[in-house]
Amino acid sequence: MRKEIRVCGFGGQGIVLAGMILGKAASVYSDYYSVQTQSYGPEARGGASRSEVIISDEPIAFPGVMEADILVAMSQPAFDKYTDDLKKDATIIVDPSLVIDTGKFDPIRIEFTALAEDLGRKIVANIIMLGSLTRLTSVVTEEAMQKAVFDSVPPRTIDLNKKALEVGFKAADDARAALTK
Amino acid sequence: MRKEIRVCGFGGQGIVLAGMILGKAASVYSDYYSVQTQSYGPEARGGASRSEVIISDEPIAFPGVMEADILVAMSQPAFDKYTDDLKKDATIIVDPSLVIDTGKFDPIRIEFTALAEDLGRKIVANIIMLGSLTRLTSVVTEEAMQKAVFDSVPPRTIDLNKKALEVGFKAADDARAALTK
Repeated sequence: MRKEIRVCGFGGQGIVLAGMILGKAASVYSDYYSVQTQSYGPEARGGASRSEVIISDEPIAFPGVMEADILVAMSQPAFDKYTDDLKKDATIIVDPSLVIDTGKFDPIRIEFTALAEDLGRKIVANIIMLGSLTRLTSVVTEEAMQKAVFDSVPPRTIDLNKKALEVGFKAADDARAALTK
Repeated sequence: MRKEIRVCGFGGQGIVLAGMILGKAASVYSDYYSVQTQSYGPEARGGASRSEVIISDEPIAFPGVMEADILVAMSQPAFDKYTDDLKKDATIIVDPSLVIDTGKFDPIRIEFTALAEDLGRKIVANIIMLGSLTRLTSVVTEEAMQKAVFDSVPPRTIDLNKKALEVGFKAADDARAALTK
């Protein structure tokens, strides 16, 4: 088993923290190996942010994404750039307020940013995203994800982040229900 | 140019943050590409922490460490584990309170933890380490490192972190002076 997950968007969305939490959920709170990577290049100076997580049941020799199993795009440039190297049956998730043009793809659309604003804290869009990602892909268990989130955020924000995860779970259910209609 | 830097120790020492700051210093505040990686495996559950940074003047195809140019070890198990895959002329830096047995190696010894305690905040040992690493290796400029640190810590801690960097610079000078005696 090897799963390659790429989360991308722009700075300030908590993309890197989201990757770190996912990596922790997979390894510290599950039984997998994981590697979590941020790359910075000229695009970082333009505000792009990208985090990659590899999850495997054995030690990971190549820590980079070859063909992503899961792509989460939180900006249009990120979506445009990273839909090139996807597995055929990859799960693609976007925030439709930020990724308007999805070209030939028909991704799962969840309003992470708007849902976070409904909670009064735009900053938890990344945690809502992790909730939806977990429920949609089962790449880690919801329990492991919850533990990893609680372990990674300031203690006084745990209630908020618990709510954010639950909003993410529910949004995933709603998105799936819409797909099967 | 490709430099591979591995920083390792145990959880709570700010190893991962240190790697992220170094990656930022190299790319956002210099003109390099950089990739920063955390790996988690069974050892993460035992409290080990490891962060790897690759810095290059061209896009980085393989984001892992093959043979480290620079190793910073902040725990004995980390030192024992990672001195296997070093370049021949690698720079090795340890906190001698935490790495007692250096075997056949004669690393540069700097009391990062004790120096941080002198500042009243053990938590800045990682920033002192970055100061020393920068002055000893010039892998990034001191200006780029300073910007990356200030950009990565809570604003109210900037004075403390500025001091920590300066302590790290000076400790590097002292260590170098001791070597040439």
